[in-house]
Amino acid sequence: MSGSSDSSPVAGPLGDLDPDTFRRYGHHVVDWIADFLRHPERFPVLARVKPGDVREALPLAAPRDPESLDAILADFERVIVPGLTHWNHPGFFAYFAITGSAPGILGELLCAALNVNAMLWRTSPAATELEEVVLDWLRRLLALPPGFRGVIYDTASISSLCALAAAREAAGVDAREAGLAGRSDLPRLRVYASDQAHSSIEKAAIILGLGQAGVRKIPADAEFRMDAEALARAVAEDRAGGWRPIAVSATVGTTATTSVDPVPAIAEVATREGLWLHVDAAYGGAAAILPEYRHVLAGCERADSIVVNPHKWLFTPIDCSAFFCRRPEILKQAFSLVPTFLQTPEGSAVENFMDYGPQLGRRFRALKLWMVLRAYGRTGLEARLREHIRLGQLFAGWVDGDPDWERLAPVPFSTVVFRLRPHGWDTADPRLNPLNERLLEGVNASGEVFLSHAVLAGRYALRLAVGNIRTEEQHVARAWEILRGEALRLGATAPVVAEDD
Amino acid sequence: MSGSSDSSPVAGPLGDLDPDTFRRYGHHVVDWIADFLRHPERFPVLARVKPGDVREALPLAAPRDPESLDAILADFERVIVPGLTHWNHPGFFAYFAITGSAPGILGELLCAALNVNAMLWRTSPAATELEEVVLDWLRRLLALPPGFRGVIYDTASISSLCALAAAREAAGVDAREAGLAGRSDLPRLRVYASDQAHSSIEKAAIILGLGQAGVRKIPADAEFRMDAEALARAVAEDRAGGWRPIAVSATVGTTATTSVDPVPAIAEVATREGLWLHVDAAYGGAAAILPEYRHVLAGCERADSIVVNPHKWLFTPIDCSAFFCRRPEILKQAFSLVPTFLQTPEGSAVENFMDYGPQLGRRFRALKLWMVLRAYGRTGLEARLREHIRLGQLFAGWVDGDPDWERLAPVPFSTVVFRLRPHGWDTADPRLNPLNERLLEGVNASGEVFLSHAVLAGRYALRLAVGNIRTEEQHVARAWEILRGEALRLGATAPVVAEDD
Repeated sequence: MSGSSDSSPVAGPLGDLDPDTFRRYGHHVVDWIADFLRHPERFPVLARVKPGDVREALPLAAPRDPESLDAILADFERVIVPGLTHWNHPGFFAYFAITGSAPGILGELLCAALNVNAMLWRTSPAATELEEVVLDWLRRLLALPPGFRGVIYDTASISSLCALAAAREAAGVDAREAGLAGRSDLPRLRVYASDQAHSSIEKAAIILGLGQAGVRKIPADAEFRMDAEALARAVAEDRAGGWRPIAVSATVGTTATTSVDPVPAIAEVATREGLWLHVDAAYGGAAAILPEYRHVLAGCERADSIVVNPHKWLFTPIDCSAFFCRRPEILKQAFSLVPTFLQTPEGSAVENFMDYGPQLGRRFRALKLWMVLRAYGRTGLEARLREHIRLGQLFAGWVDGDPDWERLAPVPFSTVVFRLRPHGWDTADPRLNPLNERLLEGVNASGEVFLSHAVLAGRYALRLAVGNIRTEEQHVARAWEILRGEALRLGATAPVVAEDD
Repeated sequence: MSGSSDSSPVAGPLGDLDPDTFRRYGHHVVDWIADFLRHPERFPVLARVKPGDVREALPLAAPRDPESLDAILADFERVIVPGLTHWNHPGFFAYFAITGSAPGILGELLCAALNVNAMLWRTSPAATELEEVVLDWLRRLLALPPGFRGVIYDTASISSLCALAAAREAAGVDAREAGLAGRSDLPRLRVYASDQAHSSIEKAAIILGLGQAGVRKIPADAEFRMDAEALARAVAEDRAGGWRPIAVSATVGTTATTSVDPVPAIAEVATREGLWLHVDAAYGGAAAILPEYRHVLAGCERADSIVVNPHKWLFTPIDCSAFFCRRPEILKQAFSLVPTFLQTPEGSAVENFMDYGPQLGRRFRALKLWMVLRAYGRTGLEARLREHIRLGQLFAGWVDGDPDWERLAPVPFSTVVFRLRPHGWDTADPRLNPLNERLLEGVNASGEVFLSHAVLAGRYALRLAVGNIRTEEQHVARAWEILRGEALRLGATAPVVAEDD
């Protein structure tokens, strides 16, 4: 990627690079990206470097003198790109597949150029008001009731931390002023989540001083959904044991299998027991944009908070986590600290989003989300979500139809959890885990697809998650072909023989 | 900003916008930004909209059908831009002036297009290794010893939260497993910071369950620096009172006056008392790149952790907070949680940065910092920092030389804290605060400059912070002209009369 064949300007003695230089290199970077987005397959999806390769290709210290963008961009291509795992590749099926889409990329470009800190209304009124508006758009798309107020955080980890911080505040234990340590007046505080919940719930509990012991994991049923009756029993048991139950976190689209907890039944328990109900719908929530999938958020109208990540399945570049809260005054009470230098003449006539979370500095993330929602429109989002679900179901069908493979969980969305179990092998065969582990390594070494894994009740499982906007049926078909080819190569299956051979 | 005069393509039924459309609009956005960076003064630096103006100009719901980037970008210019406060404007002197510089903007553009999640080494080896390398470059630039290991967080708020979380872990109270609530074996835990420390320290204490009561504010001296003897006395008093002191946070460049706490003396106390020493050098730390300013980090070689924000005074678009830790194993112990789905074949041969903080999702922030450090080089960074300090001192000289104005704090860096005190008015005149408040409002209404305020011992003070890469002497001179003009308009000073009139 070279910005110029004639000259190679470096930064002057003061000030920024001149705008013409920015323009020239900006065009070249845009061209490089356009090319990358047209042919992401020219790069292996999973980086092939060894630990230390990238580090060793880089100098030990920053350069003494300014360098040209030509030199920097050449090193970007030479050193950085080969060391990347390509999350924007249509063969990326690992974890949750995400997308940096064209309108979202342009939104980030504008965001960086404006370099707004959306901490106060005053420090960029449009950033604050667009955040309010665009999250209300998203709320309507998800058919959540008007009582929910939105705020954008960076990640679902922070969204869930905020939910549990609000729950702690709502518990009225005066954690904000008095803290939790060394207080003889306090019982131990307990939060509930299923054993399939994301690790961020436990991490939030650690941070908030509830500890890992403060999270009680409720068993899931055979389809990996929280058992609401077990929750009710656990709460009763804990109360009897001197714990103070404060919150329950339900999941719509768990990380391992994308199972959906029975939120209506959990909401019953939460209401009866006075627990803060948080719903982690970081991945699965997006599906509720589809009328035929609205049911996945059933019961969520009773939640106190819910998180849906546009950077997961809504084609928005990372980071963008949409947090909706039905009791924003509690959230504010948990976090608001306004030193004199941040007091503004607008007073309470405006919202200052710094009051609603741990971070004072806040990027203008609403801009990219607004651009994405407008560029695709509701119908465009629906079509893409529907297609991803179709592709997930299609792949699940192939797994189900092949006697050498088995599915290990239902497929509520677009993520399939499965394994190779050669025809005739017992489900408990101890060779299955190492076989599937080797299989995954072989498949990922192809460079064409990247899948991740999960361990379900001791069973090593492969996960294929469809979610990148560029993933088409051909990519899913190719994944299946590579999987079967690798199984054959491992000698675990017999070659397919045509009927008439 | 229109991408095309002939056609106005919208997204197709599936997939992303086609790469040619991205390329065309990418070029136009780059052109718009080049123009914006050339003439940021064409926009008022402080937005002139009223609360609700932006919201009312936007529809209540997302569009049903895809819209063209022409329409979206036209609304960006029509609705969003007038509602922005322009942090990238050379007349932005409020809070800390920051910069989205050309190489940093290009870095963010690439980051959005790659859309990497740098949670694990495996999920983008180059992102992890570049983060290690570029933070080691920064460590060398700051002349910190090799024992410090770097990690990039989004903001200093999170950096300080991580520092105090590590301090809590280092205290050995088993907060991670057992939590803090309802434990009769625990004393109350105390953290120390000066009364000039940033509010993020207190916010971190609230989040971590230490509470506001868990932060003891140490008085500052007449020059707003923590009194290390008062710290020692407070620690002794607290121990006698049954508290467990665990950490002290010193500041290099406080928010109100940019004062520098006496870190060497504080380090003495911290070592003697076994406290985790955190240094918040989010703003001031950058100055240590200058050999003649290296002294501002004196004593920091003994710190356990230190934060310097490249998105503050190192020309890197928000967000990018560099956290250095001398005891990374404690930080990891505080945060690491590795569910099976995140276990990778590389094992302990690599670092997985998700182990070192609250967030699982991590943007590829090292890229922009690498581009900025290379594009300017060490000498280029030095020249710019030196110029900003020169401009700050120049302005301070003007204030000092005018009998109608007074400086309210020393100027260790490039930020001047001052007020209008018309000649002959007593320093305690009750009219001074409202006068300066009105003055600030008038000045900010100019649209040419934006200053913020602080309150120092009850005195309303104006703050002029130089830090944007595009700010030149002419802008600082213009700020002074506008300030004096406004003072005159308010009838607080007499017109300047030429000597020979």
